[in-house]
Amino acid sequence: ASNKSLLILPGDGIGPEAMGEVRRIVNWMEDNRAVSFDIDEDLVGGSSIDAHGIPVTDEVVEKAMNVDAVLLGAVGGPKWDNLDFSIKPERGLLRLRKDLELFANLRPAVCFDALVDASSLKPELVSGLDIMIVRELTGGVYFGEPRGIEDLGNGIRRGVNTQVYTTPEIQRVARVAFELAKKRDNRVCSSEKANVMESGVLWREEVQKIHDTEFPEVELSHMYADAAAMELVRKPKQFDVIVTDNLFGDILSDCAAMLTGSLGMLPSASLGDVDDSGRRKALYEPVHGSAPDISGKNIANPIATILSYAMALRYSFDMGTEADLVETAVQKVLASGIRTGDIMSAGMTQVSTTEMGNAIIREL
Amino acid sequence: ASNKSLLILPGDGIGPEAMGEVRRIVNWMEDNRAVSFDIDEDLVGGSSIDAHGIPVTDEVVEKAMNVDAVLLGAVGGPKWDNLDFSIKPERGLLRLRKDLELFANLRPAVCFDALVDASSLKPELVSGLDIMIVRELTGGVYFGEPRGIEDLGNGIRRGVNTQVYTTPEIQRVARVAFELAKKRDNRVCSSEKANVMESGVLWREEVQKIHDTEFPEVELSHMYADAAAMELVRKPKQFDVIVTDNLFGDILSDCAAMLTGSLGMLPSASLGDVDDSGRRKALYEPVHGSAPDISGKNIANPIATILSYAMALRYSFDMGTEADLVETAVQKVLASGIRTGDIMSAGMTQVSTTEMGNAIIREL
Ligand SMILES: CC(C)[C@H](C(=O)O)[C@@H](O)C(=O)O
Ligand SMILES: CC(C)[C@H](C(=O)O)[C@@H](O)C(=O)O
Repeated sequence: ASNKSLLILPGDGIGPEAMGEVRRIVNWMEDNRAVSFDIDEDLVGGSSIDAHGIPVTDEVVEKAMNVDAVLLGAVGGPKWDNLDFSIKPERGLLRLRKDLELFANLRPAVCFDALVDASSLKPELVSGLDIMIVRELTGGVYFGEPRGIEDLGNGIRRGVNTQVYTTPEIQRVARVAFELAKKRDNRVCSSEKANVMESGVLWREEVQKIHDTEFPEVELSHMYADAAAMELVRKPKQFDVIVTDNLFGDILSDCAAMLTGSLGMLPSASLGDVDDSGRRKALYEPVHGSAPDISGKNIANPIATILSYAMALRYSFDMGTEADLVETAVQKVLASGIRTGDIMSAGMTQVSTTEMGNAIIREL
Repeated sequence: ASNKSLLILPGDGIGPEAMGEVRRIVNWMEDNRAVSFDIDEDLVGGSSIDAHGIPVTDEVVEKAMNVDAVLLGAVGGPKWDNLDFSIKPERGLLRLRKDLELFANLRPAVCFDALVDASSLKPELVSGLDIMIVRELTGGVYFGEPRGIEDLGNGIRRGVNTQVYTTPEIQRVARVAFELAKKRDNRVCSSEKANVMESGVLWREEVQKIHDTEFPEVELSHMYADAAAMELVRKPKQFDVIVTDNLFGDILSDCAAMLTGSLGMLPSASLGDVDDSGRRKALYEPVHGSAPDISGKNIANPIATILSYAMALRYSFDMGTEADLVETAVQKVLASGIRTGDIMSAGMTQVSTTEMGNAIIREL
């Protein structure tokens, strides 16, 4: 048996369909590259609610803790929209991120050459675009206490959340950003609202300190989050690595992903610290959501999930050659004009989810 | 003496230059339309820090409380960037918003026909674009307590801010959004992160209640803030009125403004409640910032500030005819091909700040 372990959590909506295509590529790797994993599959999100009443069970969290990598599809859908906040599908994903301490969320916003025209931006502004957003993922307003809704009497209620960061939390994610920048274009832009929020002042100071003491050779700039949203729209190619907190990262990374026109193509990695045994906890998932409106129709684009698997090969299993194989196959399929509906354009060939999987396996 | 009072706060950067052109139009109105104001002018932001050591004095706040409308240029610049958080230029603006209780910030994101090509988006996606963002302006994480940076010992610090909304705060801004929608395309999209934040859950519930009980005839939808950022980029014309909180509104309105390509053209209004004397406190300012890099060069675009004055004429002084005059003059100038540098394109005539003012006065 192999000692490489992978937990697959297909989740909801188009998650299972996309993950089906990943399974076929995993099988291909086993047959053709003698690459075998101990694979387990389980539930998260709405599918876990339906089976167990909660969006993730302790057992699944325990499994996730003990594998080399988790591969997740997507969570959520209208079926579970009216559930109480505390048991919604999203809380399964949030608990996994928190319990595994996956503090660094890497979200590449890359414009695929073949898809330049799918962007809503003018082609010259996005062609060749390659931004890496490093989003803090286990802190900030997502997890801060106190939180909740309290009754003030007289029919008046009050909703509270807390934005909170400690210096070690800021430092460790800043280091991830600077390390990445060194392997890329050597530039980091840190984003917050230090003009309005003290937590942003602290963020700015600590990122600057880590820069000055540990990475003086990397170019560092600071930009308020509202200005960053503007600049992403105005001139996205000015950015290399962007490092920001959980909430701003949520919004800015989605904005950047949509700019590329390649939303259905974008994977992400959520990484923890390296533990004593040299293993780094990691979860890989597409940037896109569960797209309930097109789920079950075999029309979803499986590429972002497939590329998330490729990211897992590269970062968790040190299998760069195999990751390259998958990424090259995807590029060739795109170059040959094969498209799922979301990235379809005139003159191309529209295919289903499984046909896209077939095409990629053919190129492998 | 007239009983119409206006306080002009030019502020920093390009604020004074832009406001100079407004003053000329105010004079033109006095000479040609017998429209006279009691006008006072004072300091805010960096210019107030330089003169008084604080970004706004009690005296100026007092003046602002007692006029019919405040017209503000812009605040901030690198000169004051390293000042302590509590006395930065921005705090002058934030104090004015808070003390005057200007809870509803109206930010139109309109694409001017003559400027369609200035957008980074494809022309067909923005031509005719007309979104009204209603941003809550006196609550949320901007003003919530507790806040600050505390020392935890061992060189570790902790930065905290509090996101907080009460039901009456949500209700009053929701009403403004629904009222506006009725005069427009009758659609409101409310945005928060109810999947992650309890304050967002409360926001969603209260907006829905105000809709169901007071504005059932308006179409209401809800969208997470990250999805809203994506949808703004993907297909901005799907929106009519967007209502959202202070922080999300800051980011989404800047993103929307930049989409139009008309950033240098966009005014905004910040409105309070109607008081016993029937007066609604109001502050008007351009959406753009103080642009320190181009200030003092007589090249800034004064139109957003001029249109902010037109908004004041319309909303605070019930002078729709005069507002129309100004807006039409601006449109004619654009149609004639006259442009400041920020909106310049091939075949047009590039002019300075004062020349743009001249051209608009000529059209009046
Ligand atoms: C599903 C949701 C909780 C999540 C988030 O807000 O982090 C998603 O938007 C994301 O960006 O991964
Ligand atoms: C200057 C700054 C405090 C302000 C804000 O964050 O509200 C600005 O960005 C705005 O949107 O008016």
